[in-house]
Amino acid sequence: MSGTVRTTRLPIAERVLEVNDQLAEGVRADLARRGIFAIDLIGAPGSGKTALLEATLQRLQGRRRPAVLVGDLATRRDGDRLARWCDRVVQISTGEGCHLEAGQVRDALGQLDLDGVDLLFIENVGNLICPVGFDLGQSAKVGLFSLTEGDDKAAKHPYLVTAADVILLNKIDLAPYLTFDRAGFEADVRQLNPTVPILGISATTGEGFDAWLGWLERSSA
Amino acid sequence: MSGTVRTTRLPIAERVLEVNDQLAEGVRADLARRGIFAIDLIGAPGSGKTALLEATLQRLQGRRRPAVLVGDLATRRDGDRLARWCDRVVQISTGEGCHLEAGQVRDALGQLDLDGVDLLFIENVGNLICPVGFDLGQSAKVGLFSLTEGDDKAAKHPYLVTAADVILLNKIDLAPYLTFDRAGFEADVRQLNPTVPILGISATTGEGFDAWLGWLERSSA
Repeated sequence: MSGTVRTTRLPIAERVLEVNDQLAEGVRADLARRGIFAIDLIGAPGSGKTALLEATLQRLQGRRRPAVLVGDLATRRDGDRLARWCDRVVQISTGEGCHLEAGQVRDALGQLDLDGVDLLFIENVGNLICPVGFDLGQSAKVGLFSLTEGDDKAAKHPYLVTAADVILLNKIDLAPYLTFDRAGFEADVRQLNPTVPILGISATTGEGFDAWLGWLERSSA
Repeated sequence: MSGTVRTTRLPIAERVLEVNDQLAEGVRADLARRGIFAIDLIGAPGSGKTALLEATLQRLQGRRRPAVLVGDLATRRDGDRLARWCDRVVQISTGEGCHLEAGQVRDALGQLDLDGVDLLFIENVGNLICPVGFDLGQSAKVGLFSLTEGDDKAAKHPYLVTAADVILLNKIDLAPYLTFDRAGFEADVRQLNPTVPILGISATTGEGFDAWLGWLERSSA
């Protein structure tokens, strides 16, 4: 290779983060008071965030009372998909915004009847970078990768891997048609986050969902 | 669905963009003087940007003299892959940065011997959102989607689709194993950008590369 260039962070980002962190603490306190366990779900576009939530909501019916916030630049498509499985869904349209912020979560929660709700899924904007730095008041961060993205994505997104409380590896049903070095992927995760659970799943076939739902039950107990 | 929340853009973003646009005009003038056609390649993590460039560089050997800039948060993996096919590659490490900026392109070009170069590929950070607003001085923007991301990604990323000079739809070799509504995807693109070429390709099998290389030759002639 001919060379490398390194860059530094914009100072203006610091102030935005400070304001966000204050709002996030307010959300966190409100959720704790209500006994709601909140998941911030972060993954690339097409990693299967909505499919994961559809399959999860379906399996939680009658067992838990979830609510869902879902962020996207445009369209209500994800919200409409999730509303089939949950009667408390708010779609957050971010316009050009590349991630959700705590103020949006606070406003969206204000639109929901949270009476009896014990679980909150926040589907972040499809993006492996920007969502990581913005605290939403969540109880846990779920980092979602998928086999079709290639086995180098954990190493290339160290901030998400380091921050995640669980790593899900979706689309394992497509393994026969792809070249994906799963041992290499897991070794990259381990370098960054030695103890995080790494769970292979398929939101399409349901493979691996016992382990995922088990993690969810234990974490939110 | 229970409701929707809409948000607006941060005013601080405007100043950053102004500075970037000035730097981009400098890069554009420099590239024009040298007769270099520059591509800004934008796609999600795992859409196959590096694989597309590997397959493209391989086919251009002996026909064109390309250079490559490649952006990632971390690792030199993409740069190392591309250096097998091109002797003028600079890896740009953005740290927490979610997109490339014109100043990084200018600095990276300063590290390259551009004598005789007639084509520049800039592989942006894997992200469908942030890279779109930052002019890099490119001649054309390529929007890369892939079948495995799902057929809703054009509608969900209107800024990229509107800005793109060509839309590539990668991984068409995996069509038998996926549900992907290609007519729906193309209809969403057409709503946003009525005339943009939409080319199905596979960076793995080479399917569709005649059309892609034909577009490249015509555009950079």
